[in-house]
Amino acid sequence: MILIGQYDSSFVRRVGIALRLYRFDFEHRPWSVFSDAAALGAVNPLGGVPVLVLDDGAVLVDSKMMLDHLDSLVSPTARLWPAPAQHLDARRITALATGLADRFISLFYERRLHDVASPILTARREGQIRATLTVLEAERRARPTDWLFGPDLTHADIALACTLRHLRDSAPDQFDANNLPALVSHASRAEALPVFQDISQAFIAPV
Amino acid sequence: MILIGQYDSSFVRRVGIALRLYRFDFEHRPWSVFSDAAALGAVNPLGGVPVLVLDDGAVLVDSKMMLDHLDSLVSPTARLWPAPAQHLDARRITALATGLADRFISLFYERRLHDVASPILTARREGQIRATLTVLEAERRARPTDWLFGPDLTHADIALACTLRHLRDSAPDQFDANNLPALVSHASRAEALPVFQDISQAFIAPV
Repeated sequence: MILIGQYDSSFVRRVGIALRLYRFDFEHRPWSVFSDAAALGAVNPLGGVPVLVLDDGAVLVDSKMMLDHLDSLVSPTARLWPAPAQHLDARRITALATGLADRFISLFYERRLHDVASPILTARREGQIRATLTVLEAERRARPTDWLFGPDLTHADIALACTLRHLRDSAPDQFDANNLPALVSHASRAEALPVFQDISQAFIAPV
Repeated sequence: MILIGQYDSSFVRRVGIALRLYRFDFEHRPWSVFSDAAALGAVNPLGGVPVLVLDDGAVLVDSKMMLDHLDSLVSPTARLWPAPAQHLDARRITALATGLADRFISLFYERRLHDVASPILTARREGQIRATLTVLEAERRARPTDWLFGPDLTHADIALACTLRHLRDSAPDQFDANNLPALVSHASRAEALPVFQDISQAFIAPV
């Protein structure tokens, strides 16, 4: 398989971490959505990352779909999800984490691409980021285990940690560390793992 | 179940159509992401739609997750997916259709919220929309059956039709009907179905 995209994107990184934890061989092509836009567009007309090219040439362009596909290739007991009774909850927290990333990426480009950012959009995004961080802090605090669903790392833990790193690197003013101790602790525990250190990249602001 | 959001959003609509085709009872609350932002934020900190509130009170905020959950509640033969050998292909086309919607929604707000839209973002989004429509036209033309995967409607067909309606209503200048005959035909066939007529709403531009 070939994974396209840079690990400073939380969406690329969480697919890379799953590939590594599932012990798949893969080639990594750290293309930028801006400076490699032509090459990327030839593979993915949507122009986004990550892109996962399967061994038969099929091209996947949605990170959730990539992870569902990788899950389907490993034995049920190896999958990075908790016990079935907690599946929906784990997917719910994963969706909050990835939805949060969508919001701060939108805010990042709003600021980056305009001399005067839209006050309406900026206020909406800042409010959504703050509210979602508050919910995620409460969710994490309510689960005082090593990881969200017990002793084993899940996709929800990976999504949360990747989102927090991406947020703190790209919009540090939006993360009030003093008021989010459970999230800070979660991020530190994850980033200390070899797979998080290996599948990582310092944030490079595009354009 | 309670489905929150207006049917002029392709993401809300495709969940509503699946709920109806699966014959689930549900209450529809057509809240606007702008004028009902406070009520919406109390249910979903991300502030987006659709939101699906399950009978046990669990709140789902990602449309793909909602559809996966609804699929899990019906018998395997009733699911709106083609035969297993075509699953990945159907999900790939679905991801292109929903990714396309993300792109034109971004373009819509870029135009709507700025006196001067970013030329960089506008060019990128227009190029991505054009390229993805070209790919989807070829995918649809290559499958001259009633629906993408044969005689039966799938989530891929619903996603494609909902995206096309949303695009043509919200950014009509981005859809060159003369050069996209297979997509026009697909949209017409879908919109003629009672469920598409029933689960629909004229586009209301927000803010």
